[in-house]
Amino acid sequence: MSKQEAAQQVRVARRRAGISWAQIAEQLGVAKEWSTAALLGSHPMTEAQAEIVQQLLDIDDAAAEALQMQPYRAPLAEDVISDPTVYRFHEALMVYGPAIKELIHEEFGDGIMSAINFQMSVERRPHPGGDRVVVTFDGKFLDYQW
Amino acid sequence: MSKQEAAQQVRVARRRAGISWAQIAEQLGVAKEWSTAALLGSHPMTEAQAEIVQQLLDIDDAAAEALQMQPYRAPLAEDVISDPTVYRFHEALMVYGPAIKELIHEEFGDGIMSAINFQMSVERRPHPGGDRVVVTFDGKFLDYQW
Amino acid sequence: MSKQEAAQQVRVARRRAGISWAQIAEQLGVAKEWSTAALLGSHPMTEAQAEIVQQLLDIDDAAAEALQMQPYRAPLAEDVISDPTVYRFHEALMVYGPAIKELIHEEFGDGIMSAINFQMSVERRPHPGGDRVVVTFDGKFLDYQW
Amino acid sequence: MSKQEAAQQVRVARRRAGISWAQIAEQLGVAKEWSTAALLGSHPMTEAQAEIVQQLLDIDDAAAEALQMQPYRAPLAEDVISDPTVYRFHEALMVYGPAIKELIHEEFGDGIMSAINFQMSVERRPHPGGDRVVVTFDGKFLDYQW
Amino acid sequence: MSKQEAAQQVRVARRRAGISWAQIAEQLGVAKEWSTAALLGSHPMTEAQAEIVQQLLDIDDAAAEALQMQPYRAPLAEDVISDPTVYRFHEALMVYGPAIKELIHEEFGDGIMSAINFQMSVERRPHPGGDRVVVTFDGKFLDYQW
Amino acid sequence: MSKQEAAQQVRVARRRAGISWAQIAEQLGVAKEWSTAALLGSHPMTEAQAEIVQQLLDIDDAAAEALQMQPYRAPLAEDVISDPTVYRFHEALMVYGPAIKELIHEEFGDGIMSAINFQMSVERRPHPGGDRVVVTFDGKFLDYQW
Amino acid sequence: MSKQEAAQQVRVARRRAGISWAQIAEQLGVAKEWSTAALLGSHPMTEAQAEIVQQLLDIDDAAAEALQMQPYRAPLAEDVISDPTVYRFHEALMVYGPAIKELIHEEFGDGIMSAINFQMSVERRPHPGGDRVVVTFDGKFLDYQW
Amino acid sequence: MSKQEAAQQVRVARRRAGISWAQIAEQLGVAKEWSTAALLGSHPMTEAQAEIVQQLLDIDDAAAEALQMQPYRAPLAEDVISDPTVYRFHEALMVYGPAIKELIHEEFGDGIMSAINFQMSVERRPHPGGDRVVVTFDGKFLDYQW
Amino acid sequence: MSKQEAAQQVRVARRRAGISWAQIAEQLGVAKEWSTAALLGSHPMTEAQAEIVQQLLDIDDAAAEALQMQPYRAPLAEDVISDPTVYRFHEALMVYGPAIKELIHEEFGDGIMSAINFQMSVERRPHPGGDRVVVTFDGKFLDYQW
Amino acid sequence: MSKQEAAQQVRVARRRAGISWAQIAEQLGVAKEWSTAALLGSHPMTEAQAEIVQQLLDIDDAAAEALQMQPYRAPLAEDVISDPTVYRFHEALMVYGPAIKELIHEEFGDGIMSAINFQMSVERRPHPGGDRVVVTFDGKFLDYQW
Repeated sequence: MSKQEAAQQVRVARRRAGISWAQIAEQLGVAKEWSTAALLGSHPMTEAQAEIVQQLLDIDDAAAEALQMQPYRAPLAEDVISDPTVYRFHEALMVYGPAIKELIHEEFGDGIMSAINFQMSVERRPHPGGDRVVVTFDGKFLDYQW
Repeated sequence: MSKQEAAQQVRVARRRAGISWAQIAEQLGVAKEWSTAALLGSHPMTEAQAEIVQQLLDIDDAAAEALQMQPYRAPLAEDVISDPTVYRFHEALMVYGPAIKELIHEEFGDGIMSAINFQMSVERRPHPGGDRVVVTFDGKFLDYQW
Repeated sequence: MSKQEAAQQVRVARRRAGISWAQIAEQLGVAKEWSTAALLGSHPMTEAQAEIVQQLLDIDDAAAEALQMQPYRAPLAEDVISDPTVYRFHEALMVYGPAIKELIHEEFGDGIMSAINFQMSVERRPHPGGDRVVVTFDGKFLDYQW
Repeated sequence: MSKQEAAQQVRVARRRAGISWAQIAEQLGVAKEWSTAALLGSHPMTEAQAEIVQQLLDIDDAAAEALQMQPYRAPLAEDVISDPTVYRFHEALMVYGPAIKELIHEEFGDGIMSAINFQMSVERRPHPGGDRVVVTFDGKFLDYQW
Repeated sequence: MSKQEAAQQVRVARRRAGISWAQIAEQLGVAKEWSTAALLGSHPMTEAQAEIVQQLLDIDDAAAEALQMQPYRAPLAEDVISDPTVYRFHEALMVYGPAIKELIHEEFGDGIMSAINFQMSVERRPHPGGDRVVVTFDGKFLDYQW
Repeated sequence: MSKQEAAQQVRVARRRAGISWAQIAEQLGVAKEWSTAALLGSHPMTEAQAEIVQQLLDIDDAAAEALQMQPYRAPLAEDVISDPTVYRFHEALMVYGPAIKELIHEEFGDGIMSAINFQMSVERRPHPGGDRVVVTFDGKFLDYQW
Repeated sequence: MSKQEAAQQVRVARRRAGISWAQIAEQLGVAKEWSTAALLGSHPMTEAQAEIVQQLLDIDDAAAEALQMQPYRAPLAEDVISDPTVYRFHEALMVYGPAIKELIHEEFGDGIMSAINFQMSVERRPHPGGDRVVVTFDGKFLDYQW
Repeated sequence: MSKQEAAQQVRVARRRAGISWAQIAEQLGVAKEWSTAALLGSHPMTEAQAEIVQQLLDIDDAAAEALQMQPYRAPLAEDVISDPTVYRFHEALMVYGPAIKELIHEEFGDGIMSAINFQMSVERRPHPGGDRVVVTFDGKFLDYQW
Repeated sequence: MSKQEAAQQVRVARRRAGISWAQIAEQLGVAKEWSTAALLGSHPMTEAQAEIVQQLLDIDDAAAEALQMQPYRAPLAEDVISDPTVYRFHEALMVYGPAIKELIHEEFGDGIMSAINFQMSVERRPHPGGDRVVVTFDGKFLDYQW
Repeated sequence: MSKQEAAQQVRVARRRAGISWAQIAEQLGVAKEWSTAALLGSHPMTEAQAEIVQQLLDIDDAAAEALQMQPYRAPLAEDVISDPTVYRFHEALMVYGPAIKELIHEEFGDGIMSAINFQMSVERRPHPGGDRVVVTFDGKFLDYQW
């Protein structure tokens, strides 16, 4: 079973079990952003983590095994990139990407934000004009070193 | 003169003038993320803003006029997308995009983070293991309404 | 079962049942444009709506469940984009897209028509030279706000 | 001079002259949607129309001649398709395209909405929750005839 | 069963039955070009036509039903476009496309040959230097009308 | 000067001179389809032909020389393929391509219609329901020979 | 069964039977280049040829039937084009393609080497510096004829 | 000056000078296939070779210098690949590529024909049914060695 | 069974057997880089090698047979290219590719590093600032020879 | 002046000055791999470095300034990727990429070789069967850390 098939089984099982992504994270004792990404195939889980998931969601052994495999972290499929909820992040990068690059270099010099030594969060910020989605990317700066 | 040509003139002029992006923002009285994006062609400036920029950077009249034009907010060129500093953000979306979608729907229901009613920030967070780049996306939630 | 497979089952079942898309909408008490899009996978249905559909069309439980899932709103497949009935709308955007942009900015300023706070309609307009297809896009204007 | 170069000259000249697209249309005695599209290169103008434009906007002879040439009605460039104001229309077709096709066939049978015998409009509709952009596509139905 | 699968079944069944495309057309009382296209999935057949085909070729009920469905008229797959017999038509359009456009506009003005109100034929023309394939496209002229 | 630049000069010069494509062909003593294609860059002209064109249209020496050069017969640019007048021919191939292939093989066996030993015509056919564009492709059949 | 599936069955069966491509050709009484291409799906075989192949390789009836079907001669899949043994031929065309075109026109005038009235060979040429692969393309010259 | 610009200058100069590609090769004392490819930018020439070319064709110093530069051996542009004279070679690889691979492995084992230690020829072979173009690829076999 | 399916079976079997890639290589008596590539489908194994693998990993006969087949050495799939562990190598080629080309030509003249007469290694180099991945490409230089 | 134009000026100037890439590196006191990449646009130089280059190669002020600018590290253009000297490295990644990934994970766990904290070398290794090109990639291992 591929990690994608396991992710699909997880999504259905989670819905049937009526458990939120946040509750799964709480049981695992990790951030909800990490565990949701791992359950959708982007990170390998430990055997202990996979067992907890299996008990919570009643997924089968092959799925639990697939969750532990080393992933290929693949590009998003076209139907994911173009989904409006995901697309707006690409649109924001389209509008602000060059400004982000200039401001990182101004603050840190020549280098990058690591996407490996990295964490992110998705949060709700209440606002009188309508609540807001706040997504934070937080990665170690790496400078070009020869 | 296109907004892209004006942006290129701004970049060279800013370097020669020895003024930081943050200092330009301060003179304009706006966030550095907004003004940098506007100077690179993603937002139209008012006539007053364009005049301040012209005085600070000694750009020509055609460039100052171009800064005020309504932009086409175009996709990033291949050489920008693949630049490692910009690419890491796409890689992070690749790894976390589906998780972001699930978590937005869990928290808010069916809808999107607006990329129009939206602001973002680029900041340095000191860290003993190496300082970190923190980029925050902050947009109004919009639910699907018929 | 994916929403695409459910949509395919709906199309066949609707044809066998001899029920029109408009009649399904009437039973659901919603606009025919919304329900047809939802049945083809673009919007999630409530459990109550899915049950009505199941009774009308005699689709199986898995299809009824799929209709309630949160969709990925994917780009049209090549065989749909190129279908002449669909393609003419892309051709019209090709011919009039830049004019639409100019006229929206002239009337409203810098911003967009929302595709989330949005509804559309498909209607027949009788005409002596041959009846006409009238499709209306109606979305809230959103201005760029920082 | 190409029609694209003429369109660019028109855009700059119109801004300097402080004349709206609607005013140009009024002078020409045509719909603002048609004239804006024609001035941006999608339709050929008559010699009389081009002369009126030349007087209003003070464009040069080559541009006035280009406005009269038979166009190649080309696909939108990537920077136009991805511009958020234009993109939302493609997103709406993405979400509703298959429903539009089903509803046209249900109402009219096998055939298409003509994009040649066709007109469209862009209008503002006041609304307490925020004014709305209303774009209407109106084309003759053509049925498949052997 | 999709129309493509039905088309594949038709091709095999026709070969086994030893009936030519022209003979099928004769039984249906339609042009061989129309019926061959319909049997390959480009046009919907009536129930009566599908029954005649079923009797002639001994295809199953699902295939006969698929022949009656409203098609998506999809672009040719790469293996069809590149097939030398099909490719030569694309090569001819490559060489003569712009000339065809100029000559249509010279003869008819601004507009198109309809591909909906349209018929075509494939014929053999005897010739001492080797017989010739003669393919004729015949569509109603449609002029741009606002 | 490239053949494309020469073609552009020819188009403008022809319009200014008020001479039709058919009249140029008549002066050259060749079919209007061949000469129009040659003037647009798809075929090399002889020195004598280029001289007649130069006299008729008052093009410069470099253009007249370019008309005589051996062409690269290139694929149509995107703006030509998508032009509605040209696109309808591709749409017709999309709908009828596989039927054309089947009918050629049924009539001739395994092989192709040559696009080299080939001629085509564009004609008007009067019709009470609206005059029709008739385009004929006529090429020698070539069978696969080892 | 498609011709591709038949080709795959042939490859496995040939390996198990321990018969070379050259031996199959010998039994068929044709060139090994033709029969290998036919067995891999590029040419239709006669019923007699397919029977000989079936006896030699013990393939099933559906495969033998597929070998006789009229092929779509499709473009090479990416995994075939990029295979180093095949890719070097594309690389050679990349380096020498324009020279081949110039030399054909210098020797023959405006026209092409036919790929239909065509044969090719693959041979070993002994050489003290290492034996060489010699592949010869041999096609009838066709000149552009109107 | 790029090698492509030099190649273009060479083509025009050769035509004006009335010298054949074969005559240039003869003056250089090399195969006409090598020198034509080198003059079109695929191989670097020595200073002595470039001087001979300069004298024969009267090209300028920058072009003569460009001929000596180390090339980037680039893929063929789309207008070259699709040119019918060049395309037929790609079509032949499309039809025979897999057979070539099988026959090379049958004769030589796992490995490739070198495209570096390689030569090719273009020749006319007289034939009663029409003279033939014969193109030979001749490269050293290289086996996979670890 | 394809080589890709065999590779997938090998990966799962290796994990279950708890044997490292290096241990398999040791049993085979070859470099771990060669055997890992071969087990993943890039090289054919001998019958003896396949038998050893079968005993070590308990794979089935079809997989063992597939390991011996001549491979198509295909391009990496998108999900492999974009995997961050693999992508960094493409990024390094992006940054250093032109420099590598210049330095090879400076040292060796016009030619290439063979990818056929070639070996590579993956090693860990301890380093106080964090251990390093060292990957070495080592191929015979081949100069362009006519 | 862009960094690409500066790189082109450097290449020509270096050739005219008769100075090797290695000699430039020696004057700069850096590795030849770093300085060649920097001169070709992949790294920014300090003002002092740019001055040394200017003296050695006699490039103009704009080029010296461009060498100091922060680069966009763009993907290789198609003509560079397909150049045989560069392509062989992509072919090697094609054949060994998945094996490299497996071996890195086996040795280091889940993570990547940094392409930022990274150096590489190009060397000649004498060999009786023909000297060899040895290219080494050496980057810090980064493990996935949340």
